[in-house]
Amino acid sequence: MHAIDTLITARWIVPVVPTGVVLERHAVAVHNGRILAVLPVTEAETTYTPAQRHDLGEHLLIPGLVNAHGHASMALLRGIADDLALMDWLQNHIWPAEGRWVSPPFIRDGAELAVAEMIRCGTTCFNDMYFYADEVARVASSAGMRGVMGLIVIDFPTAWAQNADDYLHKALTLYEQFKGNPLITAAFAPHAPYTVSDGPLEKVAMYAEELDIPIHMHVHETAFECLQSEERFGMRPLARLDALGLLTPRLLAVHMTQLTDAEIARIAQAGVHVAHCPESNLKLASGFCPVAKLQAAEVNLCLGTDGAASNNDLDMLGELRSAALLAKGVAGDPTAMPAHAALEMATLGGARALGLEREIGSIEPGKAADLAAIDMSALTSQPLYNPVSQLVYATGREQVSDVWVAGKRLLKSGQLTTLDEQAILTRTHAWREKIQAADQQAH
Amino acid sequence: MHAIDTLITARWIVPVVPTGVVLERHAVAVHNGRILAVLPVTEAETTYTPAQRHDLGEHLLIPGLVNAHGHASMALLRGIADDLALMDWLQNHIWPAEGRWVSPPFIRDGAELAVAEMIRCGTTCFNDMYFYADEVARVASSAGMRGVMGLIVIDFPTAWAQNADDYLHKALTLYEQFKGNPLITAAFAPHAPYTVSDGPLEKVAMYAEELDIPIHMHVHETAFECLQSEERFGMRPLARLDALGLLTPRLLAVHMTQLTDAEIARIAQAGVHVAHCPESNLKLASGFCPVAKLQAAEVNLCLGTDGAASNNDLDMLGELRSAALLAKGVAGDPTAMPAHAALEMATLGGARALGLEREIGSIEPGKAADLAAIDMSALTSQPLYNPVSQLVYATGREQVSDVWVAGKRLLKSGQLTTLDEQAILTRTHAWREKIQAADQQAH
Repeated sequence: MHAIDTLITARWIVPVVPTGVVLERHAVAVHNGRILAVLPVTEAETTYTPAQRHDLGEHLLIPGLVNAHGHASMALLRGIADDLALMDWLQNHIWPAEGRWVSPPFIRDGAELAVAEMIRCGTTCFNDMYFYADEVARVASSAGMRGVMGLIVIDFPTAWAQNADDYLHKALTLYEQFKGNPLITAAFAPHAPYTVSDGPLEKVAMYAEELDIPIHMHVHETAFECLQSEERFGMRPLARLDALGLLTPRLLAVHMTQLTDAEIARIAQAGVHVAHCPESNLKLASGFCPVAKLQAAEVNLCLGTDGAASNNDLDMLGELRSAALLAKGVAGDPTAMPAHAALEMATLGGARALGLEREIGSIEPGKAADLAAIDMSALTSQPLYNPVSQLVYATGREQVSDVWVAGKRLLKSGQLTTLDEQAILTRTHAWREKIQAADQQAH
Repeated sequence: MHAIDTLITARWIVPVVPTGVVLERHAVAVHNGRILAVLPVTEAETTYTPAQRHDLGEHLLIPGLVNAHGHASMALLRGIADDLALMDWLQNHIWPAEGRWVSPPFIRDGAELAVAEMIRCGTTCFNDMYFYADEVARVASSAGMRGVMGLIVIDFPTAWAQNADDYLHKALTLYEQFKGNPLITAAFAPHAPYTVSDGPLEKVAMYAEELDIPIHMHVHETAFECLQSEERFGMRPLARLDALGLLTPRLLAVHMTQLTDAEIARIAQAGVHVAHCPESNLKLASGFCPVAKLQAAEVNLCLGTDGAASNNDLDMLGELRSAALLAKGVAGDPTAMPAHAALEMATLGGARALGLEREIGSIEPGKAADLAAIDMSALTSQPLYNPVSQLVYATGREQVSDVWVAGKRLLKSGQLTTLDEQAILTRTHAWREKIQAADQQAH
């Protein structure tokens, strides 16, 4: 008998690797924050003496969800301006609000609200793109949440930096800061092809190679972006990124609603990853990402909620369902994006895109114990014929009961263990008063 | 001071009529199951002495949601066969399961599961199309739920009836049975243009006129249906229904994913109602209902979940969100289907389509007190700038706290008051064992 930290048992475990497998009445043995073994409960009981044991009952245990694209602190702008045309939304609401409010306290409080919501919805790792990534990293780290911080680069000045060189300089400083933090890694985050010039993009490509980190970027979000690029540069954004040397397995291209077959073939060949954000794409009417075609071309897909200002939640379970449903509608094929493939996209797909596939994304020995448990006993999940199908098509965020990151239990029977929900609500209400008063004054 | 049964106060009330209004700190006065008045809390307190008072706190009170299309008892087949091509799904799974299991006990237990789920998700009225409508009516009635029972008509024999004449005969018998039941009304439910011949359709049109009830029918669900109709009848289904005299304000046409501009103009002129089922249409890859175009043509839209076998839940709040998001994506316009319009579709639109607009669909004096309360204090609904936007884009079914139908509280702080949830689960588990064993044996 081996002494271990924790044994977690569940009615069903979906490890994601191997593909398509549902284990019944199995256990996950966890020691020093890592998965030691996945084995039948009866066998686990004769192998290990756990310091703690969690018997989850009629639950489904999955790898923690990986939110592959978002702007966490924008949670404070959730629903401030809906049902508007994109440019009206950006120019008259989001940008003015950001210009006025983005500051370390806003970033901290917004990130805390977002991290609390993400943990409650089963997310264990988020890929963020916003200002003051150092503040976001501190919030995530102190909550025990895993995160990939975007080292943002844009041509124009913001509260965070003055010009491309300043952004790059700050990016490198942040990268050094995060080194050695077991939960926090970094990715370059040049905002989008239309907001970053060739020079800084070439530097990003060079530094990303040197530091061996991903590049996280909005690409081909709208038809307008592609048209504008043809006018300005004589080519579509992907072609320009290709010319600048950015189409490599480092690139996580977000949205990608505008893709020709040739472009799909090119990104497949280059090993580019695609972050699909179906609810944001629908809400902003950006277009439809051709998910089934990308899967057929073996492009690695991951899933993101985008920011709460264009979603308006950070619920990866809901996003998973939207993605699985929408893929079928867009492909005109009800067999597109079946449940297991959708779950893989929301877990291992994200891990791969973030360069974390040896660390997270599946329930395998040696990986970090990043896990989410979902209670399937609810009336709305019954009768249960197929746990993964039920998870994808009928389960709600309220059924997420427990969440672990690196073996630490961040959600315990629906309660946050590392964050003070009441304090977060109080701070959120205070921001609402200030932000709403200013927004109303402006309109 | 007037003695009344019940006073309900809430932080926000969205009455749906007048359009776009959000009342703060108002109350609804209820007497004899009907809405007496909607007025400021302070005024209510000096006007009424209620026998019961419910102070809802940070809740949003809306008209109960009207689920305009479903097959309640199919809840027992939730998730039995997903990610399959339509004909494989129907011919190899759904139809064999129905052939084997459809019977009064299956219908009763399935309807009870469905009604329990619908009440918990804020639905107060459902429009059903399935066999043994008498059993469904008994379940709904005894649970205190409002329902419109489909008097089903199909050409071929099923457990319920042998041929079109038999279906029609049984329809008229059911109609008589339901008369006088304050919660149950009837609609003719010829299944679809491809399953009902001209003769019975003409009779349905005639009887519906005579009895003054709606006609509830799947129409233009898929491109295949339209092609097949052109081959068999030399015209598309809508043209055939037009020739048969069915395009009138009695017709509630469900799905309608295949529509030319001329067809939209024709149904607008005829006053046909459209039941939009976005999640089912996506999951079965049926096509996209052109919701924004229908709204522009002033066609009355309502919202349905369809059956749990093709959704896989009966959550009208989730459906509302999917509809509002998808409408934008399909129209390529982020201003399509704004939040208030979406809520109207899910409430008053359904009431209109079911001929119940004088009875339900809005919070207005004289209407039945069919209400749903949603707790907006949850972390996932904060910060709250706009209650209706938050309801549509960020609220989950778990936030539905209280539901009243005709003044009777069917959900009390998340607990069902008229249904025994544990007993429903036990029966559902027993069905699962039987159905799964048979489905596995067959494959």
